[in-house]
Amino acid sequence: MTRIPLYQQVCDYIIQRIKTGEWEEGSRLPSIRTLASQLGVNRLTVLKAFQVLKDSQYVYAKDKSGYYVQKNADNQKKQQSTLNEPKIYSYIKNSHLSDIHNKPVNYMFSTSLIDPKLLPNRYLSEHVKEVFDQYPQLLGTYAPVKGDKELIKGFSAYFQKYYNFYIHEESILITTGAQQGIDIIAKVFVQSRDYVLIDSPTYSAAVDIFLNRGAQLLPIDLTTKGFSLEQVESYMKKYKPKLFYMNPTFHNPTGYTVPTEQRKQLVELAERYQCILVEDDSFHEIYFVKAPPAPIFTYDPCGYVIYLRSFSKYIAPGLRICALLAHPILIKWLVKGKALADNGTPLLNQKAFLYYLTSERVQRHMEKLRIALQLRKEAMEKELSLKQFQWNSPAGGLNLWVKLHEDINIEKFKIKALEQQISIVPGNICDPLARSIPYIRLSYSFLNEQEIKEGIQLLNEVHESLKV
Amino acid sequence: MTRIPLYQQVCDYIIQRIKTGEWEEGSRLPSIRTLASQLGVNRLTVLKAFQVLKDSQYVYAKDKSGYYVQKNADNQKKQQSTLNEPKIYSYIKNSHLSDIHNKPVNYMFSTSLIDPKLLPNRYLSEHVKEVFDQYPQLLGTYAPVKGDKELIKGFSAYFQKYYNFYIHEESILITTGAQQGIDIIAKVFVQSRDYVLIDSPTYSAAVDIFLNRGAQLLPIDLTTKGFSLEQVESYMKKYKPKLFYMNPTFHNPTGYTVPTEQRKQLVELAERYQCILVEDDSFHEIYFVKAPPAPIFTYDPCGYVIYLRSFSKYIAPGLRICALLAHPILIKWLVKGKALADNGTPLLNQKAFLYYLTSERVQRHMEKLRIALQLRKEAMEKELSLKQFQWNSPAGGLNLWVKLHEDINIEKFKIKALEQQISIVPGNICDPLARSIPYIRLSYSFLNEQEIKEGIQLLNEVHESLKV
Repeated sequence: MTRIPLYQQVCDYIIQRIKTGEWEEGSRLPSIRTLASQLGVNRLTVLKAFQVLKDSQYVYAKDKSGYYVQKNADNQKKQQSTLNEPKIYSYIKNSHLSDIHNKPVNYMFSTSLIDPKLLPNRYLSEHVKEVFDQYPQLLGTYAPVKGDKELIKGFSAYFQKYYNFYIHEESILITTGAQQGIDIIAKVFVQSRDYVLIDSPTYSAAVDIFLNRGAQLLPIDLTTKGFSLEQVESYMKKYKPKLFYMNPTFHNPTGYTVPTEQRKQLVELAERYQCILVEDDSFHEIYFVKAPPAPIFTYDPCGYVIYLRSFSKYIAPGLRICALLAHPILIKWLVKGKALADNGTPLLNQKAFLYYLTSERVQRHMEKLRIALQLRKEAMEKELSLKQFQWNSPAGGLNLWVKLHEDINIEKFKIKALEQQISIVPGNICDPLARSIPYIRLSYSFLNEQEIKEGIQLLNEVHESLKV
Repeated sequence: MTRIPLYQQVCDYIIQRIKTGEWEEGSRLPSIRTLASQLGVNRLTVLKAFQVLKDSQYVYAKDKSGYYVQKNADNQKKQQSTLNEPKIYSYIKNSHLSDIHNKPVNYMFSTSLIDPKLLPNRYLSEHVKEVFDQYPQLLGTYAPVKGDKELIKGFSAYFQKYYNFYIHEESILITTGAQQGIDIIAKVFVQSRDYVLIDSPTYSAAVDIFLNRGAQLLPIDLTTKGFSLEQVESYMKKYKPKLFYMNPTFHNPTGYTVPTEQRKQLVELAERYQCILVEDDSFHEIYFVKAPPAPIFTYDPCGYVIYLRSFSKYIAPGLRICALLAHPILIKWLVKGKALADNGTPLLNQKAFLYYLTSERVQRHMEKLRIALQLRKEAMEKELSLKQFQWNSPAGGLNLWVKLHEDINIEKFKIKALEQQISIVPGNICDPLARSIPYIRLSYSFLNEQEIKEGIQLLNEVHESLKV
């Protein structure tokens, strides 16, 4: 049995009451003295718990008057069950993002999928047909849990050829998309009460995965200049987080890129504090002017960076192929996690994907895709600038992170937009602590220029109507 | 584009060749001049690489005659890498089962996979090719998280037609194999310190999944007569377990089937104590005499049973398709768990599989497969009975659960068998608490009759040699 530190037990006690709604948003917490005597612990223990909860933004302090429950402190929506339903408690958080995508609308700005019209479907299909002749027992065979050997060799050669870094086959694991990669990492390295650093804003599904493992999230703000390394270091020192999840290149949702100097320093911190950096590099290939800095992974001599590179997204998203790169020791554990998750990515998908790694044609496709996406981005920016929205123009990726007028209630905005057949991702979904922030994420990858123009015009009307 | 120092890249180039054995122990490395011109780098860069490799004992220098590959350079590397290993704690349990499968042997009795020669690979491949013409944007599209609508409809019709029970489309979730189904159920309903009932012996990967969620396992013994319902009830009362995982039909590993009367009572207990029954029904279709009793799921009016039916196993294991059936409320949560796990099973696999649900040809394949497996089972039983092993002959499934002589150390037996090129699953792996029990699981699905005969004869020799 693990011995949970006393202050941690006090934290749990408080969080539980916030989650069940017993202590409501904005209400004052019992005083340190009261709580200490109620729980039979030292006052310093309660004070430490309050400080931890303040850092993780469950509570806030008001001068002299004490501690209060933060608004939206409760990420975990309460589950209601009506009379005829099985009375079962689920640990799953409501995933707002997939709910948003599920609504069919005319102007889909919420999804950062590539418009299928921009994908080389036809010649890919013809190729995949040949795969069956090449591997007659393809459908009758399981792939190794770690991934098809030929595909792993292919990835190793690919990174050598296009990125000029050598990666041993022992360091590669194939996953069914980056999503599964994050999930397996969480399964292997994160458990109840572990601290996890996460870039803020961030990819909302990563938040959901870590919370589901019982982790406590500590947001690290990402700006156009990167992270505050002082903050990173002080959190690593104080909380000893198991890992730091980040998307440092054409970041989702902001589009920012962590500068090269910081990359080296982040690796040093990771090593010093034995904290794994999870580098989700989904947008590396979508740049408009020049290629982004080398992955953080390439600066890591000691094995503290896990690199996720989703591959099929820009070519054949239906295949769901991602390369996870890490130190062989970590891979050994991650393969076991992969075995629990699904026993291996289907062989068909891996063999079908193999072609793209070696094909010049695919490289030409990527060049065309970059241009098409740049045109769409520019169309969106042009329309937004006419309407006086604010954002930082990204040098790559699929999204704009747009600031709304400060008076605007973001939830209302989302609903009004949906009424106009427009879907957007509201800022709070991208916030690790689900705080309400006056930003929205708009993806320019799914609609063509004309649709983008129309959609933004309509969205502007929604914006104006809510400004008061 | 990468910022890895050039000399480091040269080191990697050399290490790779040493590791693959291309440059053998004791052999002379190419001269600095040769290598520099081959790689297009400065001679000083190569010199620096040689010095680094010398320090890390990959190579040694001989006066004037150049550099040579160190003996045991590869071992050296291994020792060194234990020093340099990232200091990270992993929550993953050693999954012995996948370790066993990884060893290539002549007599593979450990895996309950179907011999690929018994699968209809050829006509399936031809069919899948047509799928691409039917769905031109197949590779460019994500499937809905819950599963492809057409396939879900197909499953609903299939259960109606062949099993005569109506299942609403809202109650169906598609997962990538039953393994993923169990993993998602654990993700949604089990967390640290929750109690989980589990049949004993059981499917070892289920044990690993629940332990990874931090659950406490309570084994429920399965005998030829089913469970002790008194034990089930007393555990449910005392521990309030979140769920009861079981494989009640042609059980893995024993082959036993929970009788019909117990099925109804189990549902009543589940409802009374609000405990989910997870019914893993992977072997339902593999019966030798008559079809098994109806699934427990079909007796459940209140939504406390989750039903897992792995489908592709007997037709196209490479596709990895499983139907998870449950009350729509549970499905709603499980879909969110599926979104976290991988955002949806690849569309290609779902569309490719669709055909089998409606094809008469596949039904004929299943009939032939049953006969082939029965012959293999009988071949194994005949040989075992000549050698006076003990087991209960199962009416379906893929495994025999064979008792060894009581004096035998099961771990020793496993190792001895491996030395004879035979892989078996030792009983302790199937025990939820990893206790050592004098049983082994032998699968008859992977080898033909002749191989089975030879393998059992060899296995008997191992058995005799250990009896003392």
